[in-house]
Amino acid sequence: MPENNAEQTKPASELRFDLVSKDWVVIATGRAKRPETFAEQKRQKEETPQGDCFFCDLKNQNPPVLEYKNKDGEREVVVIPNKYPAFKHSVNLRERAIGPYSLMDGSGFHEVVITRDHEKSLGEFSVKQIRRVIDAYHERYLELSKQKHINYVSIFHNHGREAGASVSHPHSQIIALPVIDPDLQRSLNGSKMFFENRGECVHCKMLEWDLEDKQRLIYENKEFAVLAPFASRVAFETRIYPKEHHSYFERINDQEKDLLADAFKQALGRIHKGLNDPAYNFFLHTAPSDGKDYCHYHWHFEILPKTSIWAGFELGTGIEISTVEPEKAAEYLRNLEI
Amino acid sequence: MPENNAEQTKPASELRFDLVSKDWVVIATGRAKRPETFAEQKRQKEETPQGDCFFCDLKNQNPPVLEYKNKDGEREVVVIPNKYPAFKHSVNLRERAIGPYSLMDGSGFHEVVITRDHEKSLGEFSVKQIRRVIDAYHERYLELSKQKHINYVSIFHNHGREAGASVSHPHSQIIALPVIDPDLQRSLNGSKMFFENRGECVHCKMLEWDLEDKQRLIYENKEFAVLAPFASRVAFETRIYPKEHHSYFERINDQEKDLLADAFKQALGRIHKGLNDPAYNFFLHTAPSDGKDYCHYHWHFEILPKTSIWAGFELGTGIEISTVEPEKAAEYLRNLEI
Repeated sequence: MPENNAEQTKPASELRFDLVSKDWVVIATGRAKRPETFAEQKRQKEETPQGDCFFCDLKNQNPPVLEYKNKDGEREVVVIPNKYPAFKHSVNLRERAIGPYSLMDGSGFHEVVITRDHEKSLGEFSVKQIRRVIDAYHERYLELSKQKHINYVSIFHNHGREAGASVSHPHSQIIALPVIDPDLQRSLNGSKMFFENRGECVHCKMLEWDLEDKQRLIYENKEFAVLAPFASRVAFETRIYPKEHHSYFERINDQEKDLLADAFKQALGRIHKGLNDPAYNFFLHTAPSDGKDYCHYHWHFEILPKTSIWAGFELGTGIEISTVEPEKAAEYLRNLEI
Repeated sequence: MPENNAEQTKPASELRFDLVSKDWVVIATGRAKRPETFAEQKRQKEETPQGDCFFCDLKNQNPPVLEYKNKDGEREVVVIPNKYPAFKHSVNLRERAIGPYSLMDGSGFHEVVITRDHEKSLGEFSVKQIRRVIDAYHERYLELSKQKHINYVSIFHNHGREAGASVSHPHSQIIALPVIDPDLQRSLNGSKMFFENRGECVHCKMLEWDLEDKQRLIYENKEFAVLAPFASRVAFETRIYPKEHHSYFERINDQEKDLLADAFKQALGRIHKGLNDPAYNFFLHTAPSDGKDYCHYHWHFEILPKTSIWAGFELGTGIEISTVEPEKAAEYLRNLEI
């Protein structure tokens, strides 16, 4: 009887507050789906046939801006300029006003990080292979962040057509921009405000709780925690955080890179297995390279599986509705054997 | 020769600053598509067959929270509670903390506004039919905004599966929430900051320019302007603004409702014709109903056609890339004969 009552008065959803962005997110607790049901979803895979794949032809990608070869001298990872860049670098950044408006040239860099295998997604890579991708991210980050007018380097990866990947061959993208992107700017603002009010890093505060509480923890190694954020925006949102307070991704050392690769393997491998190879996006959020002080910030990767069945509401309100509780998502991913 | 030079040095894109949200948006000028090409896109229409459509059965929607009948006594517009609500109202709003986190019950209302015709989208309605939909929005807004714990009433419409409409029969949704949604909050903050610094409404400032400049103007009547915003987030983004400074949608009068219906007909009719019945979302942004003073704000409707072929980048950066210049989009829509 009390249980029935509890069931009847259970709200349709919970509103959770994101401590960093100050956004409200909705967790549809009332009609949340069981985590297992996400594995039943089949995504529409429109693969580019291997024979037609431009990215498969690694050896003819010329000139790469970076290449890593295997012991047989074959290219394993290459970074090339995007053939259809959203941004091209110009030394003269023309800023101008039109009436009340202001604009500038979209000056910047747009590169693609390509790995060898046509079929395997990052979650199926070995830790060593993932480590090479992280090396490429890091090396290009260092190079691009030094360029004129570049204030932010965005590293992201789209897997699957639903996540915006126009080419199925696994690849990441690096965009270097003269402006700090609005999402990061909000994250920086929230983190700074918390630091000024409370004298501590908001991400460290959440990590401390989550590492102790363990309800949202998916995996941890010596340096990194993989967890489902309390205010998850989508079902199975997963983040990789350095456990210690580090603001600048580019200061990562070799040992940390090994452990980041391990954390990535655990995060993406579990998502791949548990959700039946879903489409997903992941991206890096790190302190900008504009020379200002961002020691209040805490870099991390955010992974957003495309599991959502709700849409449209988010556009009008900016409130996203997650159809599984992050605690249940974390438990499900944590208990998988990979 | 100068033209060739101009072509060669043309940047891949422009970064435009959104005066209200402080976001940067990207207009891919370098490889922008001709507006006409958007009409060639065919969207995947998975219509619910009329016989199976739950929304077609207007007369059995009981109990409606609102109904408008035609002169034959048949229901023309009904508003019903959503069968699968994201929010249910509870008198006791349980706010609580878990460690560093805070949350509350998703208490609120979730209603659906249904119109008679199964096939016709809003852009194909007569001005009179649209007026009835606006009446329903207005009447429910007034009612819901008075309820306990309701601080914001979100009105939105999803057309087409790509825009998140799970039922093809035209319908709008109304969600009443205990919190102000983050998108609106940012818009309120930006508008307030501009007002405090400059002593005027940022939207009035932009409108003044755009009504004079006419480059981004699609249509205007005595009370409303339909325009493509300077910092368009997606191709063919279209907004409907009251020309005079009005903060609160709920204060609209009868004559203004007639002219809003006319503006909607022009906006959606042109999008329907010019872009070959694309999927789209539209939503209302208006001052919250939490009793605070928002006289710096300027209510409006935003229409976002789903024309984007870029994706994924936006998620990582929050920067959206529009593939057509708003000036060209406006010119194209303005010159259509509907």
